[in-house]
Amino acid sequence: MARRKQMNGTPAETEAAFYDALSRSDVDALMTLWSDDEEIVCIHPGAPRLIGHAAIRSSWEAIFARGRVHIQPIQLHVTLNLMSAIHSVIEEITAIGHASQDVHVVTTNVYIKTPQGWRIVVHHASFAAGHVSGESTQIATLH
Amino acid sequence: MARRKQMNGTPAETEAAFYDALSRSDVDALMTLWSDDEEIVCIHPGAPRLIGHAAIRSSWEAIFARGRVHIQPIQLHVTLNLMSAIHSVIEEITAIGHASQDVHVVTTNVYIKTPQGWRIVVHHASFAAGHVSGESTQIATLH
Repeated sequence: MARRKQMNGTPAETEAAFYDALSRSDVDALMTLWSDDEEIVCIHPGAPRLIGHAAIRSSWEAIFARGRVHIQPIQLHVTLNLMSAIHSVIEEITAIGHASQDVHVVTTNVYIKTPQGWRIVVHHASFAAGHVSGESTQIATLH
Repeated sequence: MARRKQMNGTPAETEAAFYDALSRSDVDALMTLWSDDEEIVCIHPGAPRLIGHAAIRSSWEAIFARGRVHIQPIQLHVTLNLMSAIHSVIEEITAIGHASQDVHVVTTNVYIKTPQGWRIVVHHASFAAGHVSGESTQIATLH
């Protein structure tokens, strides 16, 4: 598949492009943001681990085929060094026909610096109990 | 709290020490493996995001208070550069009184190189549907 070169100068730019591509259900734009490496990892909430471009692309196509999902990353928490960046975000997910429920999504996005800019190597999203506000101190609901 | 210096020469050594500390319910040993940075992140399956040593330590104490849990990391998948390492592992969890269920745990462990050796900065564990075997190609169960 053809991959557009994107000069993403910061991990934040790559992350913004990622959630923008999601909001537009644009698989091509989404996949250009990942590292060319076949070692990339994607974990959707409640779903098994996927490794490699083909499996990850197929998963997003399946998700987009079920309708548009709006994901708003909030409460970003960053760990950064020269070659990698780890973003921990809370995702506010709004799907048509779904009211807000007593769960939210926590996501770990890992970026590495490549000659083509900052690219995604890991996207790990999972459901968490409770509402978003004050989540960092709610330790009573742990498994 | 006193922290023993540990010379963990590789991310794999730190990870082995992490799961060893878990198997012994040893909170002190467990917490020495994390970066001294207060920006550390821990997400237990189904639970909200925790940030910082105090919240993370309390969460493990609460887990250990409920009984011993044996976690066996399998199917390790590694992305490594000079300063950081991202380990994607499947966790086989065996708790007393719990039979094997139709879920497994997928975990992203992120390590950074510090003067004291490789330390944990992110532990993100979440439940995934289905059995472990062949999980990397099971894309039909995606959300």
